[in-house]
Amino acid sequence: MKGQTLQLPAVFERYRDDIDAGLRVAFNNRELPLYDMMRYHLGWLDEDGRPQSRSGGKALRSTLCLLACEATGGDYRRALPAAVAVELVHNFSLIHDDIQDDDRERHHRLTVWSIWGKPQAINAGTAMRVLASLALRGLQEHGLSIQKQLDAQHLLDKSCLSMIEGQYLDISYESRLDVGVADYLDMIDRKTAALIECALEMGALFGVDDGGVIERFRDFGRNLGLAFQMRDDLLGIWGDERCTGKPRGNDIRRRKKSLPVVYALEKAEGGMRQELLDIYQKGVVDDAALERVLRGLEFLKARTFVHEMAQEYSRRALLEIERLDLSPIIRRDLEEVVHFLIERDF
Amino acid sequence: MKGQTLQLPAVFERYRDDIDAGLRVAFNNRELPLYDMMRYHLGWLDEDGRPQSRSGGKALRSTLCLLACEATGGDYRRALPAAVAVELVHNFSLIHDDIQDDDRERHHRLTVWSIWGKPQAINAGTAMRVLASLALRGLQEHGLSIQKQLDAQHLLDKSCLSMIEGQYLDISYESRLDVGVADYLDMIDRKTAALIECALEMGALFGVDDGGVIERFRDFGRNLGLAFQMRDDLLGIWGDERCTGKPRGNDIRRRKKSLPVVYALEKAEGGMRQELLDIYQKGVVDDAALERVLRGLEFLKARTFVHEMAQEYSRRALLEIERLDLSPIIRRDLEEVVHFLIERDF
Repeated sequence: MKGQTLQLPAVFERYRDDIDAGLRVAFNNRELPLYDMMRYHLGWLDEDGRPQSRSGGKALRSTLCLLACEATGGDYRRALPAAVAVELVHNFSLIHDDIQDDDRERHHRLTVWSIWGKPQAINAGTAMRVLASLALRGLQEHGLSIQKQLDAQHLLDKSCLSMIEGQYLDISYESRLDVGVADYLDMIDRKTAALIECALEMGALFGVDDGGVIERFRDFGRNLGLAFQMRDDLLGIWGDERCTGKPRGNDIRRRKKSLPVVYALEKAEGGMRQELLDIYQKGVVDDAALERVLRGLEFLKARTFVHEMAQEYSRRALLEIERLDLSPIIRRDLEEVVHFLIERDF
Repeated sequence: MKGQTLQLPAVFERYRDDIDAGLRVAFNNRELPLYDMMRYHLGWLDEDGRPQSRSGGKALRSTLCLLACEATGGDYRRALPAAVAVELVHNFSLIHDDIQDDDRERHHRLTVWSIWGKPQAINAGTAMRVLASLALRGLQEHGLSIQKQLDAQHLLDKSCLSMIEGQYLDISYESRLDVGVADYLDMIDRKTAALIECALEMGALFGVDDGGVIERFRDFGRNLGLAFQMRDDLLGIWGDERCTGKPRGNDIRRRKKSLPVVYALEKAEGGMRQELLDIYQKGVVDDAALERVLRGLEFLKARTFVHEMAQEYSRRALLEIERLDLSPIIRRDLEEVVHFLIERDF
């Protein structure tokens, strides 16, 4: 990846092979071409069904799940089915997001629906969601109590429902002009933070029995998830296309109520406010309108605001785990991940 | 409902209020408008969010679940969360089916997507699927073992995955001309029978511990599900619009590979075969083509074939439970349901 200024922390590399192997187990004996659509989405096959090996993304959520398990003293492999489940839920949401947003490409690759059509892509997404739930069955082989298996299922379902609620709000905000920062926070809390929170809570659940420690990891995850989404919003407007895989200003063109824009709509006054409202009231944002919005965001220092807010939530995340008894190595891993997530260019 | 020749068996009435109440519990404290889309789908609200009371369908799957629980000696209320879960999975599939088939109406009522758009209707469907899973949490209040709760979750997930696989096959068959009766059976086994099988297996699971008995109910459900879908296919071509809520010949217009057509494509010879192939190769089935297909089906006695096949599978269903020790009342209920499902006009 060119233009990359910050490397993926080492912890992502540490679990990568296990996560990949775990994901592949979830597809064992799944023969219908329906599953090849998912294998394509995951970067294992090309669109003609030929094996392909691609990076397949950061696997952020599953990595965090395993890290939380290890951080709380567990063998991270016990949490692998949960990590796989979270990763599958995340990928189900990507397949459906692309349908809902009419996006033909993701990371310079055709999206599932643009190859197989929307009706079948809907099936691929919902089926992947069920595979996530079935992956949790693997927990029973790791000697986890039935109660914890049931708890994991409940956590996964709750966070998945929150995620869909967030997606609902995100779409409904597109046609609204009265979305404030509080509405935005409520939306990303569900859409993004809930699943990251779930990843960390499940990981901790399999590492320790102490409810207080599990809660710390959950709240760490929530704050980290919020910070993560804020960085995503920043990249969605000012990110380098070569790193993000999305054209510059993409979120503006699609009239997404991402944080920079929500902030600007709250903050702008007079003629600038009217100009922004006029642009966001229209159906299409053309190049000239895009430039005007970018100038408005610059004038209002929206980028700085978003970056500082992401920093604030990452600080809150680290505060949650500050007083926990963690090994120095694990603490450094967690800090590296937090730092990476709010400074990353991809 | 006009033109109705066969009444819904009494057992549907017996559980109706409990099922309705159980479904409503699943929506307790769900405030987002996203949930009103689902309430609309279930017939509780009109499209402006005003309370409405509609029949809300037969609630076939949930009724069968409760009946299986009672038949195996359990208090049917123990199985209520499972019955609700199955009903929600079924309704999630209807919301998505309407999107996938581009159907603007269902039972003379606008479909969810035709009011709120496809992106949000996708969310309503997937969220309802998660509500189904969360509904199973209610089982713990009924004193069921954690193991049975986990088993129920697994059954629900497995059948839901089969159902989506069936939907995948159904859509993929639309553009194929080489679909035989065996392919058809494989498709409806997943698309329709799997969830009905699950309903009965879960009900029995909560009534009894005897694996052999549970298996009988499962196989009863599978055969009944196959017979049910065959009747549905018959009604999809020859059904009375006032009863089915769908225009006559609807499945032919949409080039669905339903059993009458699959049978005809296998059976037809010479010019008739060529005529059918020509019609099914084209994108649109107009009135003239519809009439030609109907004449072909009549000549080949497709309706009789489908009816007899449905009878055959309903006979197999009853055979499964023939030697079980059931109360005479329950046995009559089960027989009435089987009879109704293959003779119904709606």
